[in-house]
Amino acid sequence: MYDDDHPKHFCAVFGIYGTNDAAAHTALGLHALQHRGQEGTGIVSWDGKDFYAHRALGHVADAYSNKETMKRLVGHAAVGHNRYSTTGAPMLRNVQPLFAEIATGGISVAHNGNLTNARTLRKELIRAGSIFQSTTDTEILVHLLATGEGPFEDRLVSALQRVQGAYALVMMTKDGLIGARDPVGIRPLMIGKLADGVHILASETVALDIVGATFVREVKAGEIIIINGDGIRSIQPAPDHPARLCIFEHVYFSRPDSFMNGQSVYQVRKNIGAELAKESPADVDMVVPVPDSGNPAALGYAQESGIPFEFGIIRNHYVGRTFIEPQDHIRHLGVKLKHNANRMMLKGKKVVLVDDSIVRGTTSVKIVEMVREAGATEVHMRVASPPIKHPCYYGIDMATEEELLANRMTIEEMKAHIGVDSLAFVTIDGLYRAAGEPGRDPENPKYTDHYFTGDYPVPLIDKEGGAGKEQLSLLQDLG
Amino acid sequence: MYDDDHPKHFCAVFGIYGTNDAAAHTALGLHALQHRGQEGTGIVSWDGKDFYAHRALGHVADAYSNKETMKRLVGHAAVGHNRYSTTGAPMLRNVQPLFAEIATGGISVAHNGNLTNARTLRKELIRAGSIFQSTTDTEILVHLLATGEGPFEDRLVSALQRVQGAYALVMMTKDGLIGARDPVGIRPLMIGKLADGVHILASETVALDIVGATFVREVKAGEIIIINGDGIRSIQPAPDHPARLCIFEHVYFSRPDSFMNGQSVYQVRKNIGAELAKESPADVDMVVPVPDSGNPAALGYAQESGIPFEFGIIRNHYVGRTFIEPQDHIRHLGVKLKHNANRMMLKGKKVVLVDDSIVRGTTSVKIVEMVREAGATEVHMRVASPPIKHPCYYGIDMATEEELLANRMTIEEMKAHIGVDSLAFVTIDGLYRAAGEPGRDPENPKYTDHYFTGDYPVPLIDKEGGAGKEQLSLLQDLG
Amino acid sequence: MYDDDHPKHFCAVFGIYGTNDAAAHTALGLHALQHRGQEGTGIVSWDGKDFYAHRALGHVADAYSNKETMKRLVGHAAVGHNRYSTTGAPMLRNVQPLFAEIATGGISVAHNGNLTNARTLRKELIRAGSIFQSTTDTEILVHLLATGEGPFEDRLVSALQRVQGAYALVMMTKDGLIGARDPVGIRPLMIGKLADGVHILASETVALDIVGATFVREVKAGEIIIINGDGIRSIQPAPDHPARLCIFEHVYFSRPDSFMNGQSVYQVRKNIGAELAKESPADVDMVVPVPDSGNPAALGYAQESGIPFEFGIIRNHYVGRTFIEPQDHIRHLGVKLKHNANRMMLKGKKVVLVDDSIVRGTTSVKIVEMVREAGATEVHMRVASPPIKHPCYYGIDMATEEELLANRMTIEEMKAHIGVDSLAFVTIDGLYRAAGEPGRDPENPKYTDHYFTGDYPVPLIDKEGGAGKEQLSLLQDLG
Amino acid sequence: MYDDDHPKHFCAVFGIYGTNDAAAHTALGLHALQHRGQEGTGIVSWDGKDFYAHRALGHVADAYSNKETMKRLVGHAAVGHNRYSTTGAPMLRNVQPLFAEIATGGISVAHNGNLTNARTLRKELIRAGSIFQSTTDTEILVHLLATGEGPFEDRLVSALQRVQGAYALVMMTKDGLIGARDPVGIRPLMIGKLADGVHILASETVALDIVGATFVREVKAGEIIIINGDGIRSIQPAPDHPARLCIFEHVYFSRPDSFMNGQSVYQVRKNIGAELAKESPADVDMVVPVPDSGNPAALGYAQESGIPFEFGIIRNHYVGRTFIEPQDHIRHLGVKLKHNANRMMLKGKKVVLVDDSIVRGTTSVKIVEMVREAGATEVHMRVASPPIKHPCYYGIDMATEEELLANRMTIEEMKAHIGVDSLAFVTIDGLYRAAGEPGRDPENPKYTDHYFTGDYPVPLIDKEGGAGKEQLSLLQDLG
Repeated sequence: MYDDDHPKHFCAVFGIYGTNDAAAHTALGLHALQHRGQEGTGIVSWDGKDFYAHRALGHVADAYSNKETMKRLVGHAAVGHNRYSTTGAPMLRNVQPLFAEIATGGISVAHNGNLTNARTLRKELIRAGSIFQSTTDTEILVHLLATGEGPFEDRLVSALQRVQGAYALVMMTKDGLIGARDPVGIRPLMIGKLADGVHILASETVALDIVGATFVREVKAGEIIIINGDGIRSIQPAPDHPARLCIFEHVYFSRPDSFMNGQSVYQVRKNIGAELAKESPADVDMVVPVPDSGNPAALGYAQESGIPFEFGIIRNHYVGRTFIEPQDHIRHLGVKLKHNANRMMLKGKKVVLVDDSIVRGTTSVKIVEMVREAGATEVHMRVASPPIKHPCYYGIDMATEEELLANRMTIEEMKAHIGVDSLAFVTIDGLYRAAGEPGRDPENPKYTDHYFTGDYPVPLIDKEGGAGKEQLSLLQDLG
Repeated sequence: MYDDDHPKHFCAVFGIYGTNDAAAHTALGLHALQHRGQEGTGIVSWDGKDFYAHRALGHVADAYSNKETMKRLVGHAAVGHNRYSTTGAPMLRNVQPLFAEIATGGISVAHNGNLTNARTLRKELIRAGSIFQSTTDTEILVHLLATGEGPFEDRLVSALQRVQGAYALVMMTKDGLIGARDPVGIRPLMIGKLADGVHILASETVALDIVGATFVREVKAGEIIIINGDGIRSIQPAPDHPARLCIFEHVYFSRPDSFMNGQSVYQVRKNIGAELAKESPADVDMVVPVPDSGNPAALGYAQESGIPFEFGIIRNHYVGRTFIEPQDHIRHLGVKLKHNANRMMLKGKKVVLVDDSIVRGTTSVKIVEMVREAGATEVHMRVASPPIKHPCYYGIDMATEEELLANRMTIEEMKAHIGVDSLAFVTIDGLYRAAGEPGRDPENPKYTDHYFTGDYPVPLIDKEGGAGKEQLSLLQDLG
Repeated sequence: MYDDDHPKHFCAVFGIYGTNDAAAHTALGLHALQHRGQEGTGIVSWDGKDFYAHRALGHVADAYSNKETMKRLVGHAAVGHNRYSTTGAPMLRNVQPLFAEIATGGISVAHNGNLTNARTLRKELIRAGSIFQSTTDTEILVHLLATGEGPFEDRLVSALQRVQGAYALVMMTKDGLIGARDPVGIRPLMIGKLADGVHILASETVALDIVGATFVREVKAGEIIIINGDGIRSIQPAPDHPARLCIFEHVYFSRPDSFMNGQSVYQVRKNIGAELAKESPADVDMVVPVPDSGNPAALGYAQESGIPFEFGIIRNHYVGRTFIEPQDHIRHLGVKLKHNANRMMLKGKKVVLVDDSIVRGTTSVKIVEMVREAGATEVHMRVASPPIKHPCYYGIDMATEEELLANRMTIEEMKAHIGVDSLAFVTIDGLYRAAGEPGRDPENPKYTDHYFTGDYPVPLIDKEGGAGKEQLSLLQDLG
Repeated sequence: MYDDDHPKHFCAVFGIYGTNDAAAHTALGLHALQHRGQEGTGIVSWDGKDFYAHRALGHVADAYSNKETMKRLVGHAAVGHNRYSTTGAPMLRNVQPLFAEIATGGISVAHNGNLTNARTLRKELIRAGSIFQSTTDTEILVHLLATGEGPFEDRLVSALQRVQGAYALVMMTKDGLIGARDPVGIRPLMIGKLADGVHILASETVALDIVGATFVREVKAGEIIIINGDGIRSIQPAPDHPARLCIFEHVYFSRPDSFMNGQSVYQVRKNIGAELAKESPADVDMVVPVPDSGNPAALGYAQESGIPFEFGIIRNHYVGRTFIEPQDHIRHLGVKLKHNANRMMLKGKKVVLVDDSIVRGTTSVKIVEMVREAGATEVHMRVASPPIKHPCYYGIDMATEEELLANRMTIEEMKAHIGVDSLAFVTIDGLYRAAGEPGRDPENPKYTDHYFTGDYPVPLIDKEGGAGKEQLSLLQDLG
C-alpha cells in the first residue's frame, strides 16, 4: 500500500529529564520516531529557569543540523514533538511543543492524539476570553491549564477531566517532566531510563534504543507521571485498568523494531502473515511484499506456507514530497515514482502480494496493474488487517467514511476493483491471535479496533452534536 | 545626526474601508510611511467574512512584491502596520497587525505607541488565564478586548479606560474599520477620503497623497472612529480637548511633506532654522545640512541669514543595515559609510552645520572631525531642537537617561566634546514659535515635549512601581 | 554496510529525443537513477534552436518540483545528469550537463565516468588557450570538441581518441542526441524506445521502466550512437568487442530491478548469496541482511541454505546527510541513526549477517557490536564480493589503497577486527558464476574487476606520471 | 528625472595592493561606488598563491555582510566590481571580477565599459575553440589573454590592441594589480595611495575617501599601470594625449563629491545650473530640484538667479526595485513611489524644476503633472544637459535612438509633451564652460559628448557591420 493510501496524522512525543544533553537526546529520539510525523518538529528545553525553543517545518535531520541552534537549546530537561502532515498548508505555528507562560510559570506541551470534544471546548474558552494562536487541539489543553486554579498538578488533573479523546502527552513545567496517557490508553507512551536520575518518556521503544536507554514500562491508561530531581511519581486520577492500545500501532503505525503492549511489533506482523497463510492460502510461486510496510507480514506468510519470499517490487527510497508529476499520460506515474516492478523476477510467475492494509484502494489498483504488466500470470492479494469500514476520530486522518473501500464494496467487489485473482483480509480474530490474544473478546476487547468493528471506546462529542462546524471567523495567514 | 543617534521605535498604522483594492492601497500607504518603521510590516485584509494576513520582516517594498500574495489578500477593508527596529532580534511574531478570534468575532489590531502600564496589566491578565504570544504591549489590548463583556464597542471603550500611554490604533472587526487615539493625542492619526464611501486612517498625510486621497481631518485626542458601510461615526469617551502632539513629529519623526497639527512639517522645520539664525547667528561662508534630516532647517537658516546653503556633506543612499565594518582601524568608518565630506567645497571654508537633534552625540563627534579633515577652517553647529534631557516612555526608544548627552553635560561641555567652534540649540520658545505658537505656555503647553522639559502628560505606571521587572519565565524562541 | 563505507562517485546519465515532454521524461528518468548520484542534478533541453538549462544541488525530487521551471525547459530533446557527492564542498558549477557554444553550434554534455589522463590533457589545453570553468574532467572533453576541426561528428571521434578512461556519455547537439561508451565498456549505457521516433539513452533500465519505455539494447563498448529525426545511427570507431562492464554494477551500484549485461541484477545478487552459502555455510538460526543493499544476497543465502531469512536490522529511511551527531558519548551513534537492531528477534540467536562489500570496515565493526548488544549469541558475516584490495581510477571514489581493510589485513585479521565469529567473502570465481560465467577467465575476463584483482583494463596515465599534481593557481569560490 | 529615465549600465571597478585587509578595503570602496552598479558585486582576493572569490547579486552592503565570508577572502591584494542592471534577468555568472586560469597563471578581471567590436571578436574566438561562459564582453578580453603568447604583459598589450571601445580595467595576476584605461580615456580610473606600498585603483575618488586614501592622479588615456611590491610602473602603448572623459560623468554618473578630470563634480553641476540661469532665466517664486540628482544644478540656478531654492519634491529613500504596482488606476503611481510633492510649499507658486537630463521624458511628464496637481500655478523646467539625440555604444544603456525624446521632437514639441510653461536645456558650450573649458572646441573637443553631438571618438565596429546579430545558439539558464 502506498503512503497516500495509509492512515495519517499520528504524532511522536519525547521528553527527558536529568542530563545536560537533554535537547540533543531529544533530537535523537525524535529522529528514531520520524515515521510518526514528518511535517514539522520542535524541541523545548529548560534549564530550571528559562525555556528555549526551536521549531521547524520538515524533517528532524534537517531541523537540528545546525550546531549553533543545538548549543542554544540549553538545559537538563527537554520535550520534543514530531507532527504529521495534515490537510491544508503546513504552518509553523502548529508545530509543537507549544509554550505558554501561565500563572504557575512557563509550560511546554507536546501531544500525540486527538480530542473528541475539541470544538465544544474551544468555543467555551473563546467565550470566556481565551485567544487561540493555532488550530491544534493541543492548545485547548493549554488554555484549560491557564484558566485553571491552584498549583499546576491540580490544574492538570482538572483539565484532563474535561477533555475527551486519545492522547499521549509530554509536558515540561517548573515541576519537571510530566507525562499523561488518556484513560483508555489508545496512544502509546513508554518510560525509559538512561542512568540514575535520567528518565525518558517516548512514543515508542525505538527512541530509547537510539540513545542507549533501557525500557522501564509503559505509562498506564489514565496515569500521570511526574519526573524531576525527586525521581518518578505516579498519579492515577482515573480508575486503573489495562490499556486498550490502538491496534493499528501493531498493523502499521509503529516501527517493526518497537516493543509495545508486551509484544514485538515485528513478530506480531509476522504472526499476522502466518495467520493469513493459514486462513487464506494461495497456490503461487512466490510471496511478494508491498514494501516496506508489507515486509514482515509477507515474510510470515512465506515461512508459514513454505512458498519462497521474493523482493518482487523495489522501492525507491528517494521519493520526495514535492516532486511534480510531469505528465498525466504516463500510466500510474505516482506509483512508479515510489515502486518499480522487479520484472525479471515476476515474468511468468504466479504471485501473492502482501500489504498491511487497504484504505481507499487507490494505489492497490495501480500496483496490481504494474505487477501484471511486468508479466505475472496470476496476482493474488493478502491484507494484514481486516477490512477498514469505520473512520477514526482519535487523531488518525485516514479517509472519510465514504472513501473507505471496504465501506462501499464487498470483498468480491473489491477483488474485481483491484483486479486480483483472489483477495483476502486477515480476520479480526486472526489479528488478535497474532497479537497474543485467544481472539477478540466482544465483551472486553483488548485493543481499540473501531476501524474494523465500529466500537469507539471514547464518546465522539463534537461529531454527535454540541459544537457544530461554524467558526466565528477565520484567519488565512499567508506568511 | 546619524540614524544610530536618532530616537527610534515609532511605528506606522494604516487602514482603509470600502474598496476592493484594500490590501494594495494599504501596501502603498505603508510604503509612504516606511520611515516610521523598517523592522517588519504586515497587512490584514477582510472580505466581510474571513481575514487574510501577510506579515514579514524587512521593508514594505520587499514584503509586498509577490503578486500572488497580494492577490490572496482579498477584501474591501484592510489594516496595515510598519514596525520599527527595537533592541533584540527582530521576531516575526511581534510584527503587527495582530489577529485574534474573540467572542465577538475576529479582530485585527495595529498600534503605534506605547502603554505605560503594560507590565502591570500583563501580570493581571496572566493571573486570570490569558496566554500571551508576543512581547508587544499591543497584545495587552487584545486580551482586554477578549476578556471584556458585551459587544465590541463596549469592550473597546472599557479597554481604553484601563490602558495608559500613547497610542494611535487602527483595528478591523466585523463592525468595520476602527481608529482610536490616546486621550492626550500624543501620536498622530489622520482621516482621509478616497471616494464616496472609501475612507482611510493613517499616521501621516503622505500616506493619503500616495493613493490620491484627500485629507479630511485628524482624529481627535481620545476619539474613537468607526468606519463601515454606514459612513463614519465618532465616539468621544474621554473629555474633548486639543491634542498635545509629540513635538518630535515636527522635529524629526514625520516626513517633511506631511501636514500635521495644522502645520506643514517642512515649513515648521524651515522656521526652526530661521529661529536658530536669529537666536544664534554664525559668521561663516556657508550653511551645510547634516543630510537629509537637517536639510529643511539648514535651508531656513540660510534663507534667514543670507549665508549660502551648500551640500557640503553627501549622503550615501545605499546604506544597508547589515554591512559589517571590516576594520576597526579605518577612522570613523561608520560615519563614512553613510556620509562623505564634499571636500572640494569645504576646503578653507568656515561652515555652520545644521542638524535636527543630538541624542547621545556619538556621531556628531565623528561628522565634525570628518568636516575638519576635509579642510574646513571653522566648524559651528546649530541644532533644530532644544537639548534632550529626558527619556521617552511613550513608544520612542532614544537612549537611557544616562546616555543623553545634554543630561550629563553643559552646552559648553558639549561644544568641547563635539569639537565645534560654537554650538547652539534652538530654545523651547523658538521651537514653539516655529510651530506657530507664540511660545511655550507652561500652564497649558500645546505639545508633548518631555524630552526637553520633563513634563510627562501621562502617568508612568510601570516605571513608578507597581509592576516590577521580574518575569515568571522566559521563552527564547530560536526559530 | 553503511553508506559511508560504500564506493562513491558513480553518476547517472539520461537523454531522450522525439517527444515534446522531453524535459519531464528526463526528470523521471533521473528520479529512477537517483541512487547513482545525489549531490546535484541538471537537465538541458533543446527545441531545435535554443537550449534551456536547469541545474541544482540536491535531489531530483526537489530540483524539478517547480512547475514554472519545468514549463520553461521546452523542446523535443533533452539530456540529464545526476552527480554523486565528492570530497570538498559541492558546487553548482560542477553540476552537469555542461553547455558550450562552439563553432559547430551549441553542445550539452553529460558524463558518467572518469578520465585517467585528465590532468595531462587539461594542462595541454590551458597552454593552448582554453579556459576551464569547472573542475570536472567532463569539461576536458568539451574543450577538445571546441578546439577540434570539421563537423561535430569528426570532432567527437577525434576527441574520444585522445581521452583515456571510463565513460558513458550523453550529448545534445544540433545533430541530435548522441551517446558514447568507452572502448572497454566499463560504465553502462542502455538504449530504450518509448514510441516510434522516440528514443532514450540511460545508465540503467529502471529509467526506461519509469517512463514506460522498452529496452532495445546496450550501447556497445566503443560505440557512438546518434539519434535524431532520421532514426538511430551507430558509429564504431574502436574495434568491436564485448564490453567488460564494471562488476561492481552487479554487486552494489545498480538498482536490483535493473537488467544489465544480459542479467537481472537482483538475480545475480541472489546467486552470489547462494554461492556464499555453498562456499561458506554457517550453522545459525537466521540469515540477516545488512539492509537494504544486502537484502538480495541474504535472501539467496537463506534460500540455498534453508536457514530462515529475518529482518534482524531495521533501517531508518529518514536519514539526512546533514544531521549533526550531538554527542560523542552515545556509542555508535552514526550507525544507530541509520539502523536499529530488531532486538526481540536477535536475542539469544545465532545469526549470519550478509553484506554486499567491505571497503574500510569502519561500520561493520559497529553493526556487529550493535547486533551483539541486542543479545545475539553468535554473529557470523558473509560478504557478497571478494576482498577489495585495489582502488578505482575510473570514477569511483572508494578509499585510498591504505584505507582498504582487505589491503592491510588477512581475512583472519579482519574477522578479529570486525569482531565476528566467522567471516567469509565470495570467491572471484563464485562471483563470476553468479553473473552467469563459468568462472573468471584470467586470459579474457568478462568484467572489469580491478578492485579484487588489480587488473586495470585502461592505462592510468595521470597516476603513472606525466601530469604531476601541481596546479598553476587555484580559485576558491565562496559563492 | 527618475531612475527609469536615466542612462544605465555603467559599472564600478576597484583594486588594492599591499595591505592584509585588501578584501575589506575593496568592499568599502565598492560601497562608495554603489551608485555605479547595483545588480551585483564581486571581489577576488589574492594571497600571492591562490585566489579567493565572492560574487553575489544585489547590493554591496548585503553581499559582504557575512563575517565568515570576508575572513575567507584572504590576501594582500584584491579587485572588485559593481555591475549595473541590464535588460534581461540578472545572472550571477555575469557578475565580475571574472577569473581564469591561463598559461601564465590565474588572472582576475574587472571591467567598466563596453567594447564596440565585441560580437566580431567573440565570433572569431569561438571559431578558434574558445568557450564562453558569460555574455559579458569582458570575457572576450579574458579569452584574448588566454590565447595570447608570451608573458602576461605582452598578452595584455596585444589584447588591448585588438579591442575597440571604452574601458577602465582592473586586473589581478601574479604580476600584481594592473589597471588600464582605453586610448580615448572615456571611462575614469583613479590612482590612490593609502600608505607606503599600498596603492589603489578606483573608478572615482569617493572610493579613496572612504578608506582614507589620498588621491595621486588619474590613469592616463591608453595607459597601463602595474602595481606590486616594486611600486607603480606605467606602460603607455598607445600615444599619449589628454583623456576625453565621457561628459555624462559630470552631468549624472559620478557622485557629486567626486573629483574628476581636474574638477569637483559638485561644482561643475552647480556651474551648469548657473549657466542655465544665465542662458534661460525664469520669472518664478522658487527653484525646485528633481531630487537628488538635480540638487546641485538647482542650487547653482538659485544662487545665480537669486530665486529661493526649495525642496518642493520629497524623495522616498526606501524605494525597492521589486515592489509591484498594485493598481493601474492610481495615477502616476510609479512616480509617487519615489517622489511626493511638498504640496504646502508648491500651492499657488510659480516654480522652475531643475533636472539633470531628459532621456525618454516618460517620467518628466508625470512629475510635472504631480507638481501642478499640488497647486503650482506655473511650472518651468531647466535641464542641466543639452538635448540627448544619439545613443551610446560605450557601455551606457540609455534608450534606443527612436526612444530618445530629443531625437524625435523639437524643444517646442517637448515643452508641450512634458506640459511645462517653458523648457530650456543648457547649451553644449554652456556645459563645457561649466566644466572649466572656454566652450566646445569642435576641432578638438575635450570630452566625449556623442549623446549631444553625435561625435563618436571610437569606431562602432559591430554596429557598422562585420558581426551581424545572429547567434549560433543560445542557452537560457533557469538556475
